[in-house]
Amino acid sequence: MADKTAIEEGTAFAPQFGADGLITAVVTDATSGDVLMVAHMDQGALAKTIASGEAWYYSRSRHKLWKKGESSGHVQRVVELRVDCDQDALWLTVEQGGPGACHTGRRSCFYRAVPLGQSGAVKLEFRNADKTFDPQSVYGRAGKSERK
Amino acid sequence: MADKTAIEEGTAFAPQFGADGLITAVVTDATSGDVLMVAHMDQGALAKTIASGEAWYYSRSRHKLWKKGESSGHVQRVVELRVDCDQDALWLTVEQGGPGACHTGRRSCFYRAVPLGQSGAVKLEFRNADKTFDPQSVYGRAGKSERK
Repeated sequence: MADKTAIEEGTAFAPQFGADGLITAVVTDATSGDVLMVAHMDQGALAKTIASGEAWYYSRSRHKLWKKGESSGHVQRVVELRVDCDQDALWLTVEQGGPGACHTGRRSCFYRAVPLGQSGAVKLEFRNADKTFDPQSVYGRAGKSERK
Repeated sequence: MADKTAIEEGTAFAPQFGADGLITAVVTDATSGDVLMVAHMDQGALAKTIASGEAWYYSRSRHKLWKKGESSGHVQRVVELRVDCDQDALWLTVEQGGPGACHTGRRSCFYRAVPLGQSGAVKLEFRNADKTFDPQSVYGRAGKSERK
């Protein structure tokens, strides 16, 4: 790893990919500020995102490079891309095309809350969980999902 | 792994820790909406966060459970905790105590932007990068940092 001070205080972009070759990307909605999704990029996805200004990821479940919106048309235009202090995480602020980012048919992947102040089994509570599109009609049936 | 439909559409909280026993946690500021940091939780950190309503993490660099603010006093009160569709990422909305979250002395860890539309070497641009506290005086010298 490069020098810690250079990574934290410098202007050289030196993304720290993990042992799996991936870096975590947090995606927020330029309009609402909500976190839309958490995904991963390999070096190729990051280079394509920087060059095109549209979000590309690496799908850990499908083991392939993936342009967000390639099946659904719900492309993400990157308004701003930031890197964190130790350069092992990215934050994309995006204009989300179409009705949503989540492969389940919702605007955001984060549609359930975990109640606090409890111990033992926890029951999730739905929040903003109405579907904004029909994932079957948008992605088709098998194998055309946009699962991260 | 439990049934995909149950994980995505159910109310049972079944956090999917990785092979390293960790789950990614995105932390946003309840006031500004900015992403403050990306950190990781093990099962113990998550249980303590849920029970206490204050953020605990697992430090991958220091290999230990860690209450945010334990050295600095900059505790994070969790306003809301959400889980994503496949339950392998968490989103904490927090009230950030004190002047900042980042161990470099800034409010957010994301103080540099990556310019878009380029290829080859990329030069980062500082954004909201003024230090809001002196990390040396807050964390002390060696070994008392709050690095994730």
